[in-house]
Amino acid sequence: MSLLLVAPNRNLKALKEAILEEDPNIEIDIWPAISNKEKVNFAVCWKHPDHLLGQLPNLQAVSSLGAGVNHLLNDDGISENTKLCRIVTPTLKEQIADYVLNAISNYRHHTLQYITDKKNSRWEQQYTLLKKNCTPGIMGLGEMGLSVASLLVKNGYQVNGWSNSKKEIEHITSYAGEEEFEAFLNDTNILICLLPLTQETKDILDLSVFQKLKQPAYLINVGRGEHLVEEDLIYALDTETLDGACLDVFNEEPLPAKHTFWNRSNIMITPHIAAVTPPEEAAPIIVENYKRTLSGMELKNEVDRKRGY
Amino acid sequence: MSLLLVAPNRNLKALKEAILEEDPNIEIDIWPAISNKEKVNFAVCWKHPDHLLGQLPNLQAVSSLGAGVNHLLNDDGISENTKLCRIVTPTLKEQIADYVLNAISNYRHHTLQYITDKKNSRWEQQYTLLKKNCTPGIMGLGEMGLSVASLLVKNGYQVNGWSNSKKEIEHITSYAGEEEFEAFLNDTNILICLLPLTQETKDILDLSVFQKLKQPAYLINVGRGEHLVEEDLIYALDTETLDGACLDVFNEEPLPAKHTFWNRSNIMITPHIAAVTPPEEAAPIIVENYKRTLSGMELKNEVDRKRGY
Repeated sequence: MSLLLVAPNRNLKALKEAILEEDPNIEIDIWPAISNKEKVNFAVCWKHPDHLLGQLPNLQAVSSLGAGVNHLLNDDGISENTKLCRIVTPTLKEQIADYVLNAISNYRHHTLQYITDKKNSRWEQQYTLLKKNCTPGIMGLGEMGLSVASLLVKNGYQVNGWSNSKKEIEHITSYAGEEEFEAFLNDTNILICLLPLTQETKDILDLSVFQKLKQPAYLINVGRGEHLVEEDLIYALDTETLDGACLDVFNEEPLPAKHTFWNRSNIMITPHIAAVTPPEEAAPIIVENYKRTLSGMELKNEVDRKRGY
Repeated sequence: MSLLLVAPNRNLKALKEAILEEDPNIEIDIWPAISNKEKVNFAVCWKHPDHLLGQLPNLQAVSSLGAGVNHLLNDDGISENTKLCRIVTPTLKEQIADYVLNAISNYRHHTLQYITDKKNSRWEQQYTLLKKNCTPGIMGLGEMGLSVASLLVKNGYQVNGWSNSKKEIEHITSYAGEEEFEAFLNDTNILICLLPLTQETKDILDLSVFQKLKQPAYLINVGRGEHLVEEDLIYALDTETLDGACLDVFNEEPLPAKHTFWNRSNIMITPHIAAVTPPEEAAPIIVENYKRTLSGMELKNEVDRKRGY
């Protein structure tokens, strides 16, 4: 019995130590060093290499190292019998809420403009966009979406939410399903994508969506890069359908050096950092699901393959 | 009887209209057009020209157009018998709180770094500074300081406050007077200046203060430019005593194009916009104080010349 940690380009030593602090008896490998492939029954993965998991004959469960699971759902090498789960920690929810609040606040305070002005020693006062003229609309009211919504409400924003089913949440106007999507967009000017990535939600952020938003319209994508039709974003910015965008996720990550997004003055880019689990919070969840796996119990935050999240 | 509006480089038409909406019978001049100097008994000023007010023989009261009153206290032309007042509106308090929260959040999220990285198409993840490792300390717990403190508490920060007298405010650690200044600084790593400008507070933000802060240390100045010893800020940044600064106010405004602050990558500059009163909120306060002046009553937010605020 062993536990495998896989995350290329990320230093996993701190995570290994945090897990051992929870239970010093767990045998842990950090990819690419796997002492015995047959012994691995639990893997924790982020952007793992193709074919890797298919080579582990006794793999019983795979945990995403974060909240997203597409890298697991898209891996044909994982057997249908292998359970999938993800890590959602309070900090993660708090982090993403903080990130979104910061993005909205930067938009309202013209931060990108002032930084450009600074380069030119230019002193020009802009009116800060009043809160009452900003209506954030959150696509996806899962754990992350609700955390964002609640922080925005606490900070005095009128918040809209759009989800599969109608929600009864204080201070949040809930829109549900395809039939209410247009009404949701018409009453929103800061669009926040926190959807899971599924066949239905891929490419959902397109020009027709941007055109339905209230002005001035702004996009925050903290879902997945594949939610966004990139050329539609550029077109919407060029035609002033959108006033700006803040993107933390991209179709290809790292964002290629020659990508046009880098050169757009009204796009804020962050390198997929809106929610990064601290090792000391991930460890107890990993250890619990490792033990549940060995006991054949249902996992915490187990993923439903059909729903896709 | 007439009311004079004075604010060079600012368009005051909207304010005049908002005042007339409150009371269409008030006679209003917008500097430099003054129909009859002898008629002016109330002036509303922001950065007014020298000698102007001394030329108005029947001036009974002067209101600052904002919360700051140094431009009035420093004007020898204003007679001792002329009352001074200022405009503090809920929006102003909310605006300054929002501004400070945004500044802290940008520091925690490495916004300046990511914008620099963007110029170089550089993808490099930084760990967001955890909230629990950020202790904002507010110098000055007047109306503005309290508004900032309360928003920061609401957003989960541990907040310190420093003021003349000890305050009993939930969730805020209160330090008072010179004897507790060092303890306040030692427990603070994000220093926020919201003091009024007086002989005692001028040049208060100096190297000895920065050196006492917890690391990583950061400065937010939303008080007055004269609170800061500019060369000490540069020295503190160069020696990594401070990690960065966000400045909304300056010794000379507009900040001269050749000022060294413009070229510092770890200084965020905004052109004195942290709190700008919307005309529709200033108008009723101006009208009320205008009428109180004519009736010889005490003014709302009247300034105590001795205290200096």
